[in-house]
Amino acid sequence: MKKFLILILFITPFLIQAQTQMQPYLSLADALRISDAAEAKSKAEGWNMVIVVMDAGGHMISLRKMDGVQIGSIDVAIGKARTEVYFKRPTKVFEDAMKVEGGARIATVPNAVAIEGGLPIFKDGIIVGSIGISGASSAQDGIVAVAALAVY
Amino acid sequence: MKKFLILILFITPFLIQAQTQMQPYLSLADALRISDAAEAKSKAEGWNMVIVVMDAGGHMISLRKMDGVQIGSIDVAIGKARTEVYFKRPTKVFEDAMKVEGGARIATVPNAVAIEGGLPIFKDGIIVGSIGISGASSAQDGIVAVAALAVY
Amino acid sequence: MKKFLILILFITPFLIQAQTQMQPYLSLADALRISDAAEAKSKAEGWNMVIVVMDAGGHMISLRKMDGVQIGSIDVAIGKARTEVYFKRPTKVFEDAMKVEGGARIATVPNAVAIEGGLPIFKDGIIVGSIGISGASSAQDGIVAVAALAVY
Amino acid sequence: MKKFLILILFITPFLIQAQTQMQPYLSLADALRISDAAEAKSKAEGWNMVIVVMDAGGHMISLRKMDGVQIGSIDVAIGKARTEVYFKRPTKVFEDAMKVEGGARIATVPNAVAIEGGLPIFKDGIIVGSIGISGASSAQDGIVAVAALAVY
Repeated sequence: MKKFLILILFITPFLIQAQTQMQPYLSLADALRISDAAEAKSKAEGWNMVIVVMDAGGHMISLRKMDGVQIGSIDVAIGKARTEVYFKRPTKVFEDAMKVEGGARIATVPNAVAIEGGLPIFKDGIIVGSIGISGASSAQDGIVAVAALAVY
Repeated sequence: MKKFLILILFITPFLIQAQTQMQPYLSLADALRISDAAEAKSKAEGWNMVIVVMDAGGHMISLRKMDGVQIGSIDVAIGKARTEVYFKRPTKVFEDAMKVEGGARIATVPNAVAIEGGLPIFKDGIIVGSIGISGASSAQDGIVAVAALAVY
Repeated sequence: MKKFLILILFITPFLIQAQTQMQPYLSLADALRISDAAEAKSKAEGWNMVIVVMDAGGHMISLRKMDGVQIGSIDVAIGKARTEVYFKRPTKVFEDAMKVEGGARIATVPNAVAIEGGLPIFKDGIIVGSIGISGASSAQDGIVAVAALAVY
Repeated sequence: MKKFLILILFITPFLIQAQTQMQPYLSLADALRISDAAEAKSKAEGWNMVIVVMDAGGHMISLRKMDGVQIGSIDVAIGKARTEVYFKRPTKVFEDAMKVEGGARIATVPNAVAIEGGLPIFKDGIIVGSIGISGASSAQDGIVAVAALAVY
């Protein structure tokens, strides 16, 4: 990717239009590195988690379920990751929005899981995917998500 | 299976790790005994119920619908049983969580029915399945679930 | 769990019936080892694949999508893995059954994807999960599945 | 039921209109008796089955899953029972229709599982429900269904 970018910096104008129509994306290697970090943080804290990494289309690149996690956390982690990509914001934003008067309307938003525990992933200001975590308390899920993205 | 068990009785320590990758499960005989108890309790109270018993994967082992129950209770009982297995907790925990500020967020959790009336079933601390009851008030559904598990 | 196991090592026969209600399961470590082998084989062959490992309840333990794979392969791999667990047989069995007279009836079987590319996983004769592969031709998907299970 | 019918035969005209708007139905007692017979036949043959009994609306009255049956048979048995009620015919009729030229069109019929193994249940010429069986070969599933209805 880097080499390709250096190349186009020195080559030329007629490539510029094509270049502006490029967007960054998350590779499997990125997703596994992020997932490893999430798993390491979870183990260090003694938590069992489901860890999902999605691409910018809301499709899974990686999922792993640690032993003993409740199976319901699989769909919750997938749902959180989808929410973050679909709405380009942490699920916690929706969770907080539920706390004000009339906030229950958020429950009618398609594809929105309003439980903390995940983050969208941006590169150069463009969304490239998300991480969704579920298995412990939603605050703990959120801590793991933050720790995981530190390696990206 | 028997041979394997006899083997571990005489062999030993170095097999223990493999052995720890065993987990208990619920049989049809267990499920029918639990369902019979639920039906007996329901009849004694004059309530008509749908009674569902699931395994640890969230799959039905037994369902029975007493005469005259509203058909909507079939999916409610299935949903309660699924919730309990998927999240290893009684649906009442979710019902109670809905009552606090921002509790409506629970309505966005995939596969969670937040209505009392069922219990997860554990054996040696490991989840083996669940019972889901629907047909009367949620508190009455809960009473039948407790009575049913007394025979397990 | 350990205490219970030590107990049965010293106690005996009358416990055997309860003990027979134990079944083996697949750990995340197993699933990652299998997935690594599938990814290594795919790379060696120059194929890009989605690799899914499920538990005995048809729930995902691990998913990874190699760069550049068509996104449709995600649900295909999940569907193959589900089919294998749900019906305790390779998807190829259904694919072959479609080739005989009246074989189109297989298309009406709920939860059955009739495309080669995955295998159920057994331990001591009991199903513990499955692997589902999608991304190349179905025969190539099948080759990767076989190679992956060689490490289990 | 018989007593009730004799009664109305001797009572009177003004009841006739109401009477023609009555329809028979399957009770839980009926469903359990049928299910017991199916389970007994399955055990006698050494087959493990999922046994579903539905009402005339295509809703489950009873389900039971014998130990060791593949979990995929749950949805297959439910699908067969639904097909029989929805179309008032054995699933075998659809299976046979798949064998003639162009028969694959049956795979596009909503709610039709075209695999033998179940029967609609009639009373006085009116459909009251169905039985769906899955777990062995489709012919064996069909044998159990026939044996089960012998007790109704």
